[in-house]
Amino acid sequence: MQSHGHGTGGRTLPDTARQDVSHTLASEYWRIRRFSEQLCEPLCPEEMGLQACPDVSPPRWHLAHTTWFFETFLLKPELPGYRVRHPRYEYLFNSYYNGIGEQFPRPQRHLLSRPDGEEVQQWRQQVDTAMVQLIEQRPDLTALVTLGLNHEQQHQELLLTDIKYSLSFNPLAPSLGQPLPPGRPVGNLTFQPLSGGLVDIGNPEGSHFAFDNEGPRHPVWLAPFALANRPVTQGEYRAFVDDGGYQRAELWLSDGWAWIQQQGIKGPLYWHSGHRDHFTLAGLQPLHDSQIMAHVNYYEADAYARWAGKRLPTEQEWELAASQTQPARGFVDNGLYQPGRALDTPLAHLFGDVWEWTASAYLPYPGFRPASGAVGEYNGKFMCNQMVLRGGSCATSRDHIRASYRNFFYPHHRWQFSGIRLAETL
Amino acid sequence: MQSHGHGTGGRTLPDTARQDVSHTLASEYWRIRRFSEQLCEPLCPEEMGLQACPDVSPPRWHLAHTTWFFETFLLKPELPGYRVRHPRYEYLFNSYYNGIGEQFPRPQRHLLSRPDGEEVQQWRQQVDTAMVQLIEQRPDLTALVTLGLNHEQQHQELLLTDIKYSLSFNPLAPSLGQPLPPGRPVGNLTFQPLSGGLVDIGNPEGSHFAFDNEGPRHPVWLAPFALANRPVTQGEYRAFVDDGGYQRAELWLSDGWAWIQQQGIKGPLYWHSGHRDHFTLAGLQPLHDSQIMAHVNYYEADAYARWAGKRLPTEQEWELAASQTQPARGFVDNGLYQPGRALDTPLAHLFGDVWEWTASAYLPYPGFRPASGAVGEYNGKFMCNQMVLRGGSCATSRDHIRASYRNFFYPHHRWQFSGIRLAETL
Amino acid sequence: MQSHGHGTGGRTLPDTARQDVSHTLASEYWRIRRFSEQLCEPLCPEEMGLQACPDVSPPRWHLAHTTWFFETFLLKPELPGYRVRHPRYEYLFNSYYNGIGEQFPRPQRHLLSRPDGEEVQQWRQQVDTAMVQLIEQRPDLTALVTLGLNHEQQHQELLLTDIKYSLSFNPLAPSLGQPLPPGRPVGNLTFQPLSGGLVDIGNPEGSHFAFDNEGPRHPVWLAPFALANRPVTQGEYRAFVDDGGYQRAELWLSDGWAWIQQQGIKGPLYWHSGHRDHFTLAGLQPLHDSQIMAHVNYYEADAYARWAGKRLPTEQEWELAASQTQPARGFVDNGLYQPGRALDTPLAHLFGDVWEWTASAYLPYPGFRPASGAVGEYNGKFMCNQMVLRGGSCATSRDHIRASYRNFFYPHHRWQFSGIRLAETL
Amino acid sequence: MQSHGHGTGGRTLPDTARQDVSHTLASEYWRIRRFSEQLCEPLCPEEMGLQACPDVSPPRWHLAHTTWFFETFLLKPELPGYRVRHPRYEYLFNSYYNGIGEQFPRPQRHLLSRPDGEEVQQWRQQVDTAMVQLIEQRPDLTALVTLGLNHEQQHQELLLTDIKYSLSFNPLAPSLGQPLPPGRPVGNLTFQPLSGGLVDIGNPEGSHFAFDNEGPRHPVWLAPFALANRPVTQGEYRAFVDDGGYQRAELWLSDGWAWIQQQGIKGPLYWHSGHRDHFTLAGLQPLHDSQIMAHVNYYEADAYARWAGKRLPTEQEWELAASQTQPARGFVDNGLYQPGRALDTPLAHLFGDVWEWTASAYLPYPGFRPASGAVGEYNGKFMCNQMVLRGGSCATSRDHIRASYRNFFYPHHRWQFSGIRLAETL
Repeated sequence: MQSHGHGTGGRTLPDTARQDVSHTLASEYWRIRRFSEQLCEPLCPEEMGLQACPDVSPPRWHLAHTTWFFETFLLKPELPGYRVRHPRYEYLFNSYYNGIGEQFPRPQRHLLSRPDGEEVQQWRQQVDTAMVQLIEQRPDLTALVTLGLNHEQQHQELLLTDIKYSLSFNPLAPSLGQPLPPGRPVGNLTFQPLSGGLVDIGNPEGSHFAFDNEGPRHPVWLAPFALANRPVTQGEYRAFVDDGGYQRAELWLSDGWAWIQQQGIKGPLYWHSGHRDHFTLAGLQPLHDSQIMAHVNYYEADAYARWAGKRLPTEQEWELAASQTQPARGFVDNGLYQPGRALDTPLAHLFGDVWEWTASAYLPYPGFRPASGAVGEYNGKFMCNQMVLRGGSCATSRDHIRASYRNFFYPHHRWQFSGIRLAETL
Repeated sequence: MQSHGHGTGGRTLPDTARQDVSHTLASEYWRIRRFSEQLCEPLCPEEMGLQACPDVSPPRWHLAHTTWFFETFLLKPELPGYRVRHPRYEYLFNSYYNGIGEQFPRPQRHLLSRPDGEEVQQWRQQVDTAMVQLIEQRPDLTALVTLGLNHEQQHQELLLTDIKYSLSFNPLAPSLGQPLPPGRPVGNLTFQPLSGGLVDIGNPEGSHFAFDNEGPRHPVWLAPFALANRPVTQGEYRAFVDDGGYQRAELWLSDGWAWIQQQGIKGPLYWHSGHRDHFTLAGLQPLHDSQIMAHVNYYEADAYARWAGKRLPTEQEWELAASQTQPARGFVDNGLYQPGRALDTPLAHLFGDVWEWTASAYLPYPGFRPASGAVGEYNGKFMCNQMVLRGGSCATSRDHIRASYRNFFYPHHRWQFSGIRLAETL
Repeated sequence: MQSHGHGTGGRTLPDTARQDVSHTLASEYWRIRRFSEQLCEPLCPEEMGLQACPDVSPPRWHLAHTTWFFETFLLKPELPGYRVRHPRYEYLFNSYYNGIGEQFPRPQRHLLSRPDGEEVQQWRQQVDTAMVQLIEQRPDLTALVTLGLNHEQQHQELLLTDIKYSLSFNPLAPSLGQPLPPGRPVGNLTFQPLSGGLVDIGNPEGSHFAFDNEGPRHPVWLAPFALANRPVTQGEYRAFVDDGGYQRAELWLSDGWAWIQQQGIKGPLYWHSGHRDHFTLAGLQPLHDSQIMAHVNYYEADAYARWAGKRLPTEQEWELAASQTQPARGFVDNGLYQPGRALDTPLAHLFGDVWEWTASAYLPYPGFRPASGAVGEYNGKFMCNQMVLRGGSCATSRDHIRASYRNFFYPHHRWQFSGIRLAETL
Repeated sequence: MQSHGHGTGGRTLPDTARQDVSHTLASEYWRIRRFSEQLCEPLCPEEMGLQACPDVSPPRWHLAHTTWFFETFLLKPELPGYRVRHPRYEYLFNSYYNGIGEQFPRPQRHLLSRPDGEEVQQWRQQVDTAMVQLIEQRPDLTALVTLGLNHEQQHQELLLTDIKYSLSFNPLAPSLGQPLPPGRPVGNLTFQPLSGGLVDIGNPEGSHFAFDNEGPRHPVWLAPFALANRPVTQGEYRAFVDDGGYQRAELWLSDGWAWIQQQGIKGPLYWHSGHRDHFTLAGLQPLHDSQIMAHVNYYEADAYARWAGKRLPTEQEWELAASQTQPARGFVDNGLYQPGRALDTPLAHLFGDVWEWTASAYLPYPGFRPASGAVGEYNGKFMCNQMVLRGGSCATSRDHIRASYRNFFYPHHRWQFSGIRLAETL
């Protein structure tokens, strides 16, 4: 989703808390901005410009675009006397905001050798200095600053999935990180029943930051259902592959089968021939039966569910279950950059490890209204042709996720850490 | 939708009514089969093979494919001693049933000059004779025969929209029918409030024929809303065009704007430069302010609604309103082959004239299960990437439509008689 | 070649011969025009509109376009009071003459169901009546009329190769003609030495009709060489295929190998799996070892020659040899519509059976100048990226060919009756 | 041309000169290898990986590929005990030698962030050390070493044209060099007559290094002609543009006009709107009337000649004229990296400044035979679909060019320093 749109939060702040908030926000700002740069530390300058397909962006572009966000939506209109770094950056690093103006063609981002790494870093420093100043002067901008920080966190996730994708084309299989530590085997899937009924879905207004697409909160009628206790593992998915999963038309949606035929798909992304290894940010690594399966697209998730005699949950079913648990583990903060091994505890891994495909199309909630201005393009205009994913992944920051969070990607996309949680109708 | 999938009905018949039913069914069979041929009467042999893009099929192919359906799913397995017309027809006229086998490449259907028109007509007669025999012998096959007849009616609609599309490429603007008769001006749109609440949606099982995708019937919570009294007219849509509708990114979904940019779209399909005329099955004809607007795709319908400050209804909202009215006018039976002029009566034209785009993605209802066997590919496998349309059009048979009927097309498709009904949240 | 360009002849006529000439020309006109229609007699109306790819045109389009040529270049400017059949035909049936105006998009010619077959035939009659009148009145137009007739003969050849290509997509393998009659085996290839030296190449001006691209006649220095006594046969070509010809990169030009890889080419056009049958205008027929090989493109001809340790002749070498023989057999006049069996006589089949690829790029002869006006687009503008073929084929009229005749096609084209004559440097 | 193929020289060396030669060759080797690296000095690491289209390669790839050439064709087979740097480099840096094995996909070369710049430089040093050793031990390898050095020089030229192309996509218009120094206006074109006759063309065997495609030397008959005294300038070409050159179909070859239509071409590559500036390796610079025009493709060169009432020379005409002059100025050695201002002297600039398109297709000379082994793929397999250019450019090394040198590119290519020399038939 973050490759396309995300939403503006609309929270307003009580006056009395201003001073404290601005200090907290400034330090949050500093922490989150530095984390983007930390993620790039293992990358050499040659890798900072890689872009293997139009869907992904070069790491250096991510560093520049998130900076552009603060300069464009905050510093330029709100900080008196602020001078933009370069007049053309507005064009070069605009992702998709038609309200701001034309955009440099997305497929050519890898051609932006200039501004080079050093210049982008200096730009970041210029913007950060000015932003800290602005945050202290203008507590009324907290909502928009917070949106910018959530935006940056989304691009941190993309930065990891994008560089993984781009590096995967190199037969030398470069490694940036550590392999999966040893762990225990996992038991069979179990299903936990939930009773449904008329339930409220969506973010309750005024509580904390959320994107606009998470509201308004509204009632939905749910029939009784059951949810798998954990996501599908690599071992389970290999059984599907070995059972001819990619050769049996009857298991696939029509568009999924067309995708297989037209692209000549033989198996999962990043799995290497023989299906013993997969490409990770730690280079080529052995598949582990208990590791949570990632990098499936909606077609694959749906076909697996059909093969298993189950189905995917709707986003409302997922949210109902998730509203009873808390984000705990499996986030980018652990530095692993890949999903962990599956646990046998009830409703495990709802948050973290992999985004879970739901059976829900990404559509507006009843009464949804996007924010006004160019920032209103963040989420609403993408409400077509995409499916909702929930729960965050091993590339998500722990403090970035919540039960009402709606991520979205096209059904054919599989370069995200996206996995499968099964459900069944009771 | 009919270009991709449609659903198997599951009705079973009480024993006592067998004799009467088979006679009724046989005459229904005869009537519907003949209607396909009547629709082709104005076409010369040169036109029977036209296919302007892979989405459309030649009229002769439609005549053959609907015949293939009866031969493949009924005569071959059920009528002892029946000999198929030609062993290769199974391959040539299979649309998308992987359970039957490989399919002749869709984009090449226009290359099937053989079997020629005469041979296809003889095949139809052979199949019809055998089918009448089978219908009389086997009342237990009523549901499947009825499915075949509904399938044929869907292809009658496609036949008209397909030949219209193919003929539109000819600068000579061939005419097959009659222009729109004169009529009265139409008043402004009004909106009728509906209270919503917990309502049942979907076809009540056992009542009459319905496709599998219309069930199971299930409760849905709806907030109060209002529905426009009629579809948008050509005059109203022209105001959108004249207001720069196709040049303003802020009115469009992101994928819709990409469609405009990549295809160089300047205005509605079939409208000619100057926007005074449009291509119809009666050749080039003047636009009429009061004629119901057709041939918009989902992106256009959605953009129009945003421009008008309204939204599209969900399919549940539409069905709730439609369950209170009956199909009355504006069907293929009137021989006009284009939408009529809009009426000012309350909730007019819910059925007929144009299929109405809804804001709902085409997804399975809770508890949906496709039929078993190859005929199960009819509807279920298309439940991804498409949007639901409701109500039937000027190319639909009056006895083919009902409130629970779910049609579906991709958001970029606009060669169907598809129009716009506005809604608003109360 | 005729699909792209052909040349204006420049012959002028002595005054004294006018009366006789116009009678002769009128009867020639009548004979050649009727022959186009005879070639279409076996075709049903469904087949008259087939177009399997943009390179080929529907038979009905050929009938209309050749008629357009006479109406556009002769009747409209030269016959007082002549009224064009329909104002849009100028646009619909203009192939590539920018000097006349815009052209209907070539890939959509199959969509021109109107004018239908009957209307095209009536147009032909109207034009023919007027042309006979014009021919009698205006002997000064003889050169242009003769060009029009040669143009029609070129389209007769294309009509056959185009319908063969379009029919080949039909798994029913329709048949329009007769299979190859029995014949005798053929002996091994032999090579006939020619001494070369400074030789004159090109059509001697003023002798008889020739296209502009055949002149001016000019001296060329040729080193001694030898020419195979006959074209390569199907049996010989099968040995190349069986020797892994299509899998060995070292045999192919770089662009040829790219063609094989990108198109997934496994063998010759029209050969069916197992390489026992090939598709012909008489339907599926067995391959015969002694039948002359056709439907190879330049890449295949070049690769075969390399595999055989020989090379293709230049067009000058070919013309030097051909200037010593006369067109005799193997033309469309024999009604076979496929190449015959190879003979063992010296320099056999230089004319007829198959066009022979030469190693010469299609470029202007020194001092070449195209005719003035739109008709000057006939040949000159195609002098890039194409290769020269010589000698005519089984689809060429016997009275249409001569030693200086230059046909041309792109190196990847193989739907013509194009074959291989080997040569070697002495 | 060097992007596709180049030729093996066949010189053999008299025994007595071995010692001197090996020293000379080693120092030549050293000088030429260092020059590649000098050309990259102004480039930052971000720019070393740029690849704006499949036809161009990243600078770092050029540095690696030329190293691969010496390792693959010399060190690996000839130097006992030599260990290749990395087993996968053979695959990664093979350009098109099927005889060596599979090649990494050309369009993805920009994704090879590893080996990074430092590793490539260390590989170069490893190879250079070993090569100097091999040169001293094995004077019999002089021809192949010389071929490798000429190969490296060709890639030096490509490196400049490729990085210019890739940088041109950056709206910041990066600059690597110096603008054109001031100069004097140029007079009108004049034409120098040459008498032609039977002349010898091609490289005389045994004289000095030449690619295989430059021979064998052979007689050709040339009619009298005249050659322009200098190439066309930017001022002259602007007159063509201003005269509607890109809008007039009658000036263009059919394939050229199709190129204009399909690509939406409005003017020359690198000219900016208003046609006052052009992009150069010194950034955006004003056009100068007297500067030699570069970056036209064959279609543009041919159209310009037609507009000017002239034609392009054949490669034989060009060589006849060039054999009477010597390479003097306008080479990469001057460090300008763009064509200079035109001089008025007779037959000026035949060498240097711009490669001159000829009217000759790139075909083998009579009796041509490629070298044996994989190195035989250097030139011969590209002899189809390309046109010959002569004389070298501002990116060519002075000691790399000669009168018989045949460069070749596809007619649509215009990212080389390719220009126009007019000719006329007398």
